[in-house]
Amino acid sequence: MKKNNTVESRQIGKNVQIDEYCVIRADVKIGNNVIIHPHVTICDGVEIADNVEIFSGALIGKEPKAPGLLLREINFKKSVYIGESCSIGPNSIIYYDVEIGNFCLIGDAVAIRENCRIGNRCILGRHVSLNYNVTVGERSKIMANSHITGNSKIGNHVFIGVGVISANDNNFGKQGYDVNSIQGPVIDDYVRIGVGAILLPNIHIGVNAMVSAGSVVTNDVEKNSLVMGVPARHIKFLNSVEENSEKPVN
Amino acid sequence: MKKNNTVESRQIGKNVQIDEYCVIRADVKIGNNVIIHPHVTICDGVEIADNVEIFSGALIGKEPKAPGLLLREINFKKSVYIGESCSIGPNSIIYYDVEIGNFCLIGDAVAIRENCRIGNRCILGRHVSLNYNVTVGERSKIMANSHITGNSKIGNHVFIGVGVISANDNNFGKQGYDVNSIQGPVIDDYVRIGVGAILLPNIHIGVNAMVSAGSVVTNDVEKNSLVMGVPARHIKFLNSVEENSEKPVN
Amino acid sequence: MKKNNTVESRQIGKNVQIDEYCVIRADVKIGNNVIIHPHVTICDGVEIADNVEIFSGALIGKEPKAPGLLLREINFKKSVYIGESCSIGPNSIIYYDVEIGNFCLIGDAVAIRENCRIGNRCILGRHVSLNYNVTVGERSKIMANSHITGNSKIGNHVFIGVGVISANDNNFGKQGYDVNSIQGPVIDDYVRIGVGAILLPNIHIGVNAMVSAGSVVTNDVEKNSLVMGVPARHIKFLNSVEENSEKPVN
Repeated sequence: MKKNNTVESRQIGKNVQIDEYCVIRADVKIGNNVIIHPHVTICDGVEIADNVEIFSGALIGKEPKAPGLLLREINFKKSVYIGESCSIGPNSIIYYDVEIGNFCLIGDAVAIRENCRIGNRCILGRHVSLNYNVTVGERSKIMANSHITGNSKIGNHVFIGVGVISANDNNFGKQGYDVNSIQGPVIDDYVRIGVGAILLPNIHIGVNAMVSAGSVVTNDVEKNSLVMGVPARHIKFLNSVEENSEKPVN
Repeated sequence: MKKNNTVESRQIGKNVQIDEYCVIRADVKIGNNVIIHPHVTICDGVEIADNVEIFSGALIGKEPKAPGLLLREINFKKSVYIGESCSIGPNSIIYYDVEIGNFCLIGDAVAIRENCRIGNRCILGRHVSLNYNVTVGERSKIMANSHITGNSKIGNHVFIGVGVISANDNNFGKQGYDVNSIQGPVIDDYVRIGVGAILLPNIHIGVNAMVSAGSVVTNDVEKNSLVMGVPARHIKFLNSVEENSEKPVN
Repeated sequence: MKKNNTVESRQIGKNVQIDEYCVIRADVKIGNNVIIHPHVTICDGVEIADNVEIFSGALIGKEPKAPGLLLREINFKKSVYIGESCSIGPNSIIYYDVEIGNFCLIGDAVAIRENCRIGNRCILGRHVSLNYNVTVGERSKIMANSHITGNSKIGNHVFIGVGVISANDNNFGKQGYDVNSIQGPVIDDYVRIGVGAILLPNIHIGVNAMVSAGSVVTNDVEKNSLVMGVPARHIKFLNSVEENSEKPVN
C-alpha cells in the first residue's frame, strides 16, 4: 500500500496488491488475495470477490452516457459484481449494472455494457463487446472480436467463434427504440456458431444447433440443425446432446 | 485541482473536473463544465469545448508515426477540436488534425486518424476506427467494430451497422500510395448499410440506398436501391426520402 | 526523469524520455533515444532496443492467465524483445515470450499473445490481434481488425486486408486442446488476402496466391491461384512473382 496510487476504499480484504496509479473509489469492496495491476480505475458501487486479478488500464463501473443522442432510456443500478477467481483483461471496460460469475476469463479490451449478466466459467475473448441487456449462461465461450447486440440471450455451453456479429433492429434505428421490436438473438444451450457468422435480428437458435462459418442467419434455426450459407439454410440434423457419445469437455 | 495529476495548461474553464493521473499539456484549451476521468492524456494543440466528458484512458492528440514503413507522406496540423457536449469513450485514441462537431458520442476504444472531420450529433460505436482523411456529415451513426478506410466520405443521416468494413486499394499496397487511385467509398445521405457488409474500393453509394447485411459491394449502388448478396446485386427500388411517410427519427 | 513516474530499472540508455505515470519494472532494459509516453507499463524481463517509441497506455509483458478455464497448457519465457525503431501504438498489449523485429509499426490497441515472433519491417494495423504461437516473416502487413488464430504461420511480403479472421479448431473446443489437431492457416510468401475473408482451420495458402474480399477459404489454395466466393473456388492462375514485371514495392 506504499505505492503511488489513490485508494479511497476502506473495505479491502487481506493480501491484496494494488499497483501504481490505480484509482479505487470509496464505495468499493475488494475481497482477499486480489491483484490489481497499474492504471486500473474502479468506481463507486463495485464489489470484487476473492482471488480476482485485474490487469492494467481496466475500468470497472462506467456510467452509460449519451448526450441527447440515444432514443432508448437508460436505466441502471450503480453497481457491479465480479465473482471469485475471475481474470479481467487489460483495458477492459465494464459498465454499471453488470454481474459476472465465478472463474470467468474476460480478455483484453473487452467491453460489457449495462444490464449484462454472465454466469460461471465463461470466456470472453479479446475485443469482444456485449451490448446492453445481454444474458450469458454458464461455461459459454465468446471468441475474439465478436459483438453481441443489445437484448440478446445466450445459454449454457455455447461456443461463439471469432468475429461473429449480431444485430437487433431491422429498421436501422429509423423507428426509434421500441423494446418490443428491438430484439437480438436467443441462443440455446450447446449451440456452436462458426467464425464470421452474422446473426440478424429476432432469431432463435435451438439447442445444439450449429451455424457454419461465414453464414448469414436470417431465420430461426431448429434444434440439432446444421445450417450454412448466405442466407443460411438447413443442411442436416446432428446427433442430439443426449445421443452424442462424445461428451463435451466443458 | 488538488488531485494527483499533471495539468500544465492555464487555459481551463470554470467548473472543470480533472481526475487522478491525467496529463494535460500546456497548449491545451478546455471549456466550462468539462469532466475528465482518470488516466486521460491530452497533448499540445487540443481544444475541448464546453460540457464535454472524457472517460478514462483516452488519448487526444496523437502524432501519426511510421518508422520508414508507409509509402504515403503524412501531413497534418497539430491540432484537435472536440465540440460542445461530446462524450469521448474510455481508451479512445484521437490523432492530430481531427475536428468533431457538437453532441457527438464517441464510444469505447474508438480510433480516429489524422485529417478526419465529423459533423454534429454523430455516434461512433465501440471499437470503431476511422482511417485517415474521412469526412462524416451530421447525425450519422457508425456502429460497433466498423472500419472506415482512408479517403472515404460519409454523408448526413447515414446508418452503418455493426462490423462493416471497407477498403481503398485494389492493389493490396503493391503499387505504392497514389492519391488518385487510393479511394474509399463515397456514401451519400440517408444510406443504410447492414451488419457485416464489405465495401470495396472506389464505390459510390447513392442517396437513401440500402445494403443488406453480409453483402459484398463491388460496384456503385444507385440512389434508393436495395442491394444484396455476394457480390451485391440490385433487388428493388425503395421509396425516396421525400416519398417516405415515415420521417426518419433523427 | 524528474517527472512523476515509477522507474525501477537502472538499465536505461541515453537520451530516453519516460513520461508521467509510467511504470518501468526493475528487470527492464531500454536502449538509447527511446520515447515512452504517459501511462505505459513495462514488466520485468522486457528489452527495448534503440529508437523505439511507445505510446500511451501500452502494456508490455503480460502473463497469459486462465483461471482453470483453458484446456491448453501455457508455457512461456518471461521475456519480450522489441527491435530497433519500432513504434508501439497506444493501448497495445504485448504478452510474454514475444519477439518483434526492427522497424515494425504496431498500431493502436493491438494485442499480441505469448510465443509470437514477428520479423523486420512489418505493420500490424489497429485492433489487430495475434493469438498464441504465430510467426510472421518480414515486410508483411496485417491490416486493421484482423485476427490471426493460434498456431498460424505467415511468410514474407504477405498482405492481409482489413477484418480478415481465421480459426484453428474444427471442433469448437469440444475435443479439448490437442496440439496435433489445432492448426491455423499457413500462409506463404507474397500472398494477398482481401478484406473480410475468413480462413478456416488447417489450410495452406501457396506462394503469391490471392484470396478475394469476403471469401470463405475452406481448403488449401494453390500457389499463384486467385480464389473467390463462399466457399472459395479457384478462378484463374496469376503471374508468378518471378514473371511479374511489377516488382512489389516493399
